[in-house]
Amino acid sequence: MGIVLNGGTVVTAADVYQADVRIEGERIAALGFEIEQPGDQVINVDGCFIVPGGIDPHTHFDLPAGDITTSDDFYSGTRAALLGGTTTIIDYATQFKGESLKTGLENWHKKADGKCFVDYGFHMAITDWNDSVAQEMTTMVHQEGVPSFKLYMAYKNVLQVDDAALLQALRRAGECEALVCVHCENGDVVYDLVQKARQVGKIAPKYHPLTRPPEAEAEAASRVIALAQMADAPVYIVHLTCSGALQAVIDAKLQGREVYAETCPQYLLLDESYYDSEGFNGAKYVISPPLRPIQNQAALWTGLQTGILETMATDHCAFNYKGQKELGLEDFSKIPNGAPGVETRMGLLYTYGVQTGKLNLNEFVALTSTNAAKLFGLFPRKGTIAPGSDADLVVWDPRSSSEISVDRLHQQVDYTPFEGFRQQGKAIKVFLRGKLVCQDGELIQELPAGKYLFRNPFLRRKDGKHV
Amino acid sequence: MGIVLNGGTVVTAADVYQADVRIEGERIAALGFEIEQPGDQVINVDGCFIVPGGIDPHTHFDLPAGDITTSDDFYSGTRAALLGGTTTIIDYATQFKGESLKTGLENWHKKADGKCFVDYGFHMAITDWNDSVAQEMTTMVHQEGVPSFKLYMAYKNVLQVDDAALLQALRRAGECEALVCVHCENGDVVYDLVQKARQVGKIAPKYHPLTRPPEAEAEAASRVIALAQMADAPVYIVHLTCSGALQAVIDAKLQGREVYAETCPQYLLLDESYYDSEGFNGAKYVISPPLRPIQNQAALWTGLQTGILETMATDHCAFNYKGQKELGLEDFSKIPNGAPGVETRMGLLYTYGVQTGKLNLNEFVALTSTNAAKLFGLFPRKGTIAPGSDADLVVWDPRSSSEISVDRLHQQVDYTPFEGFRQQGKAIKVFLRGKLVCQDGELIQELPAGKYLFRNPFLRRKDGKHV
Amino acid sequence: MGIVLNGGTVVTAADVYQADVRIEGERIAALGFEIEQPGDQVINVDGCFIVPGGIDPHTHFDLPAGDITTSDDFYSGTRAALLGGTTTIIDYATQFKGESLKTGLENWHKKADGKCFVDYGFHMAITDWNDSVAQEMTTMVHQEGVPSFKLYMAYKNVLQVDDAALLQALRRAGECEALVCVHCENGDVVYDLVQKARQVGKIAPKYHPLTRPPEAEAEAASRVIALAQMADAPVYIVHLTCSGALQAVIDAKLQGREVYAETCPQYLLLDESYYDSEGFNGAKYVISPPLRPIQNQAALWTGLQTGILETMATDHCAFNYKGQKELGLEDFSKIPNGAPGVETRMGLLYTYGVQTGKLNLNEFVALTSTNAAKLFGLFPRKGTIAPGSDADLVVWDPRSSSEISVDRLHQQVDYTPFEGFRQQGKAIKVFLRGKLVCQDGELIQELPAGKYLFRNPFLRRKDGKHV
Amino acid sequence: MGIVLNGGTVVTAADVYQADVRIEGERIAALGFEIEQPGDQVINVDGCFIVPGGIDPHTHFDLPAGDITTSDDFYSGTRAALLGGTTTIIDYATQFKGESLKTGLENWHKKADGKCFVDYGFHMAITDWNDSVAQEMTTMVHQEGVPSFKLYMAYKNVLQVDDAALLQALRRAGECEALVCVHCENGDVVYDLVQKARQVGKIAPKYHPLTRPPEAEAEAASRVIALAQMADAPVYIVHLTCSGALQAVIDAKLQGREVYAETCPQYLLLDESYYDSEGFNGAKYVISPPLRPIQNQAALWTGLQTGILETMATDHCAFNYKGQKELGLEDFSKIPNGAPGVETRMGLLYTYGVQTGKLNLNEFVALTSTNAAKLFGLFPRKGTIAPGSDADLVVWDPRSSSEISVDRLHQQVDYTPFEGFRQQGKAIKVFLRGKLVCQDGELIQELPAGKYLFRNPFLRRKDGKHV
Repeated sequence: MGIVLNGGTVVTAADVYQADVRIEGERIAALGFEIEQPGDQVINVDGCFIVPGGIDPHTHFDLPAGDITTSDDFYSGTRAALLGGTTTIIDYATQFKGESLKTGLENWHKKADGKCFVDYGFHMAITDWNDSVAQEMTTMVHQEGVPSFKLYMAYKNVLQVDDAALLQALRRAGECEALVCVHCENGDVVYDLVQKARQVGKIAPKYHPLTRPPEAEAEAASRVIALAQMADAPVYIVHLTCSGALQAVIDAKLQGREVYAETCPQYLLLDESYYDSEGFNGAKYVISPPLRPIQNQAALWTGLQTGILETMATDHCAFNYKGQKELGLEDFSKIPNGAPGVETRMGLLYTYGVQTGKLNLNEFVALTSTNAAKLFGLFPRKGTIAPGSDADLVVWDPRSSSEISVDRLHQQVDYTPFEGFRQQGKAIKVFLRGKLVCQDGELIQELPAGKYLFRNPFLRRKDGKHV
Repeated sequence: MGIVLNGGTVVTAADVYQADVRIEGERIAALGFEIEQPGDQVINVDGCFIVPGGIDPHTHFDLPAGDITTSDDFYSGTRAALLGGTTTIIDYATQFKGESLKTGLENWHKKADGKCFVDYGFHMAITDWNDSVAQEMTTMVHQEGVPSFKLYMAYKNVLQVDDAALLQALRRAGECEALVCVHCENGDVVYDLVQKARQVGKIAPKYHPLTRPPEAEAEAASRVIALAQMADAPVYIVHLTCSGALQAVIDAKLQGREVYAETCPQYLLLDESYYDSEGFNGAKYVISPPLRPIQNQAALWTGLQTGILETMATDHCAFNYKGQKELGLEDFSKIPNGAPGVETRMGLLYTYGVQTGKLNLNEFVALTSTNAAKLFGLFPRKGTIAPGSDADLVVWDPRSSSEISVDRLHQQVDYTPFEGFRQQGKAIKVFLRGKLVCQDGELIQELPAGKYLFRNPFLRRKDGKHV
Repeated sequence: MGIVLNGGTVVTAADVYQADVRIEGERIAALGFEIEQPGDQVINVDGCFIVPGGIDPHTHFDLPAGDITTSDDFYSGTRAALLGGTTTIIDYATQFKGESLKTGLENWHKKADGKCFVDYGFHMAITDWNDSVAQEMTTMVHQEGVPSFKLYMAYKNVLQVDDAALLQALRRAGECEALVCVHCENGDVVYDLVQKARQVGKIAPKYHPLTRPPEAEAEAASRVIALAQMADAPVYIVHLTCSGALQAVIDAKLQGREVYAETCPQYLLLDESYYDSEGFNGAKYVISPPLRPIQNQAALWTGLQTGILETMATDHCAFNYKGQKELGLEDFSKIPNGAPGVETRMGLLYTYGVQTGKLNLNEFVALTSTNAAKLFGLFPRKGTIAPGSDADLVVWDPRSSSEISVDRLHQQVDYTPFEGFRQQGKAIKVFLRGKLVCQDGELIQELPAGKYLFRNPFLRRKDGKHV
Repeated sequence: MGIVLNGGTVVTAADVYQADVRIEGERIAALGFEIEQPGDQVINVDGCFIVPGGIDPHTHFDLPAGDITTSDDFYSGTRAALLGGTTTIIDYATQFKGESLKTGLENWHKKADGKCFVDYGFHMAITDWNDSVAQEMTTMVHQEGVPSFKLYMAYKNVLQVDDAALLQALRRAGECEALVCVHCENGDVVYDLVQKARQVGKIAPKYHPLTRPPEAEAEAASRVIALAQMADAPVYIVHLTCSGALQAVIDAKLQGREVYAETCPQYLLLDESYYDSEGFNGAKYVISPPLRPIQNQAALWTGLQTGILETMATDHCAFNYKGQKELGLEDFSKIPNGAPGVETRMGLLYTYGVQTGKLNLNEFVALTSTNAAKLFGLFPRKGTIAPGSDADLVVWDPRSSSEISVDRLHQQVDYTPFEGFRQQGKAIKVFLRGKLVCQDGELIQELPAGKYLFRNPFLRRKDGKHV
């Protein structure tokens, strides 16, 4: 006894076609015509697209930041993800100073286990590089299902690693079939500019972008690409925001190097002018890298169209304006960095990408799901609609029209950066591994059903193995 | 009563999965598990890939060239195509001087009708541009199913058009939902260099590449891209061969322009040194543009990997070495230009692309089938494996290993440029619209079953319609 | 008995120093201290710069344009040049259809002989290419002192030549030590756009720039650079106006090719918005290539600073607004193309280049004099202040401040495109071959004393001979 | 009573002319004809070029390196410089850890005072960045005549500074009219690669270049250019060696940034293959950055021709092969880094630049003298032949032909990297501030006459002050 979705249009990264989709158990059993089996439940989805459940490869739930913690934990965050059409997230587990990777990973498992409404995996952020950590990487990849790591070129004295660590980690990743994700901003520059700003009393949120200029991101992106080349390793640049960094990725790809990059809706749709909003309101947009001058948006869209940018993540890292963002009322550098977005990702890209003609439906699917699955060892289990794949399906009704407002969202945070944005289309049904878990914007039940995803190693083109 | 292919691995431009494929009538009915219907014939294809039938968007069958005609007509040419795993070709119908497009198209219908073993469409090559032709373009697109045209920047005094004609044709195409394909070589330069070579007695085949330098191609590619921009029209560059022209395409794409490009196996696998072969043997490689210095090959492979180059065509244009190529024994400029390739295309790209790790299976399918279908108005009818699509299927056995030799090929021409090349994998079964037409390298029956393809208009990204 | 200029600051393309300059006869005899000879006349030029007399390598005096002729002939035009600080001009003699180069040159000698207030040379514009013309080129270079030629890629059906002619002329020039100057605009495109505009009643001056887009110039520049490469010849691009064409020059230079380029003050200081001026006033700026969107100006200034652009010419080609420009009142394409500038060139570049810090004094001299002398076979006779060089000297008083107005200029035309522009500095004394010919903005005598300059061949870097 | 050089050809960065040069006291008094004064000594230099005395802006004399010191001190080093045609050197004084800049400078004054055969200045290398050093910079510039500083991105744990120091030093330099010189190699990468090589027993000299790859230099060059942009400061890249770093400079210049770069003869004429020489001989070429793959040479020559590279220095840092280089017999990383070159610089550039047609005489002068004078605050006192300038003159006889051999050189070191290289031309007379100090390859007297040069601040284009 399965489920048959009837009347919809199936969309994958390559195809768009009308057909039935049959689910049996947790998997997709068949696609086509006359595939119904006796006893199947038939659900009509006339006029809707059926797309693979979204994958958000960049979230931060239940993340400590100094004395506070993000307002969204895995429960509230993944619930919001699901309602927005995302059925898989990959969160950044973090090894803090003095910890082993194992400890870091265990800590994150504790935060997430039993609380997730979507399937979830972990990248492992390394903040304390040493030989023992280098050894642990293999274990992470092959015994823990964590084939991706993250290093920070920014956050001096906290998360930042130096070029030697970066080079060694990249090389090690190349050896043990892993992919290194990098936060690209020159932390020395940022630190210097922040101190300089504070010294002269520049403490308002609007100084945040001025102390993290696009040049500092472009420089770091160029640098890590050079390091990856010298390490003979692939590299993945998280939350790329500006044309300078994009150019570095372009140059590398055109030389045949394995460089991948992600961007986020906020960088496509918001811009530096948001920091000028009245009073302390700019704090809502204090994220790193910051929002950029508006001309960068066109460059990013072209990057998506040409396949230079592979993934659309959110870097969801929610802090309440009241009480949390306000910690920086007297000093922008004390504003906790981050903003929410996991729930609005699919809708925004559909509305401002597909509806405007910038992207087609295949590109929408590739960017929100397929490419992340391929890069992060989840494909073809996740990321597509094919027989044998997990039946993570989103029934997307393109006729729905709404306005984004914090009141109607489920993220556990007191604002959305996209307040007032129009949304065209909506996830009216969401299936997680074959089970209908959302309907018309409501959860079917309040029990989290997400499972931990043991991901596959990263296979490289040069090894003739990449998918 | 349908057919079920069982045990194979389905490959599309995005997916790779194991599943059954069910064919009913001419179409794919279902993909998945437990999809067999009572009465279905089950064919086991264990260990094989099932890929969409190949689409070769650039052939010249039954083409007059001065006093002679290509050795392959639509009968022999499409039979060879089919045996090589190609189920669709798009041939270049030509309007000669003084003719209307209608006349040109009718002439080609006469050549092809009833003789094709594969489904076929026509591009329309325009060699005599005028207002009346401009008017006819709409008719071609919307009433004849010909949404693509070709203009030549080379072949001075014969096929070459000037920049005004190019600009106007591009603009017109932009208006009537068509795509212009362009042969990019500066014909004035070529003409001058050829005359100059002949005047000093340089008559051997090896002077062919020297009189058609890569710079002449790169210049023409840059020029037509600029013209397309000024015409606000998309453009498709046929048989791109060199890094200079590739760079022009890269620059254009990165500026968000709709520029597409095709290359061919001969430019990836052969090089300029072939003209130095003994005696008159170099004549076999007299094609235009010519084979290039070997360093261009790496650039082209990177072009394929990055999606800068969309399609893998053949420019199949066969002339026998004996009697035909030999017309140029005393003057390389009298050697008929062209070489065969329609039968070897799929095997070469699989062997030298996929087997070497340069391309993955998805890229193989995209390049040999899907992208051409999308650009030339055949998708999703052709170019993919999806419910509702024509059941043009190739069962590719990757375990087969053979050597390419003219003796074993079915092209009607006395040589192959790829003599002695290894081929890994083979089309062991080919289905055309649901019917098994080839098996183990033999036709099932000698009756051509190919149909004319009325293609859809070209839809543009900027109109929000592109697929 | 000589003349000693005392108290000034000598400026060359490399140096700035305070010293006396001693003139004897037509030449500079000495530079330095204690160089006065008995009987010398001493002229004090305290506080002034002494710069080499300007060289304007691009003028059109007494040029027929349909039924009319430019308002400036060699008499009025060179008088204005001299008063503006220019002591040498190179005008474009033109071979019209059916003429030999000899005839063309003779015609221009007739126009100029005895009428010039400055020394003058001729480039030879070729509009009718054939074998006999190719032969004549050597004679021009070696017997007539004309080592530079011009070809037009625009002005279809009038001056435009095709790519074969361009290629052959470039190759021929490479063989006979000449430099080819090229007007880069795609004439086919321009012709088409003009016809199209007129057909729909777009007849105002503001349609002039829209029918000659920057892309048409950039395309032509790229093309002629490719042709020059294939001809193994140097090339000089006249009146370069836009960043696209500049990029083509940059790319070529960085590949080590001998490509040179000129721009003009109008492209640095005026922009496309001038065509929007009231009524028919835009006609004053109808020049080809047209004024460009303002962002091109910054690119051109950087081109000057980096040495990518070598020369500052004027393309002086004056037509009165009344009676001449007005021929196009009902059709912008009938407005005679051209504008005056020979008198204002030095002042504008000093004011908007040197005074603003964009250029230093050495660059000012290189751009207005030295580089043209080197490229066009006049160095070191012209273009510098060195012993043995012609004593063509301009005493430039940087303290003078004025406003440019047609009323105060000596060009024989009823407007200046730079009306109201401020001018800092002024040529308060001008010496032509040792003779003081201007003083405080007035001619010393009304008799023209300019001589024809038999110029030296163009010597190439690759021959180890270039200066 | 002066000296008149008669019969020579004067060459400056812009001019080439035949004239007499009159020296009076330490200065050039006059250039031209009939400039002789009663009592003058006339020296005939028929057939020779008279060029400005060479300026080598990058030497290391008497430099401690661990337990040893360079074999050349200021006495032997500047004597060799003089005999090679160089009359000014700028050496790198170094502030070691814990020292003030003042102390560092004083130490170098002690090393040099009274020992120099050529005039000399100091750059100040900063290895210990802190606020007090930042304050001292102004003093250095305005009270000590040291307007240029150096920072190292390589030599981890020894000389290397981090990006924060670099950024702050650049910013400070921008504020106090100084220019920052930077050694561009990523020291973290180098350190890592060296350790890695040693761990696996790769200890021969040939591992030196492999542990300092061109990518590590290109990365550092890109990075410091980005830092300079963010600091709004000019930057000067010392000893640029590879096309990747050159591209970074090109990109920056074309964006209008004030980035300058130097290269050295060894990078133009030697290549990576030298490390493969027998036994330990490769140690002679152990310099940093190392010699590069040969294709970089063509890029550097084009860089010189296009003005992208401004200066030709030597990085003269001599260690004897015997006893000094041999310290690294068992470990390439212990080989003291550096090679001699101050004596051969002018001859090599003349022979392999001018004689081959790659450079003209003006470029030769600009690269060996004028540009360094302009960038480092010595112009027009040094760097040209103009009235009022120091009479530092080299009479260069282009007819001389010799072979470079350690036996005939005066550098105090037991080898030359250019052994066996041909040298065309020779400094047959050298004048230092008006005094003939060398003749036919011999010193006139053994007493050092060089003086310390108090250099002028660096003036910027953007301030409208640059020369």
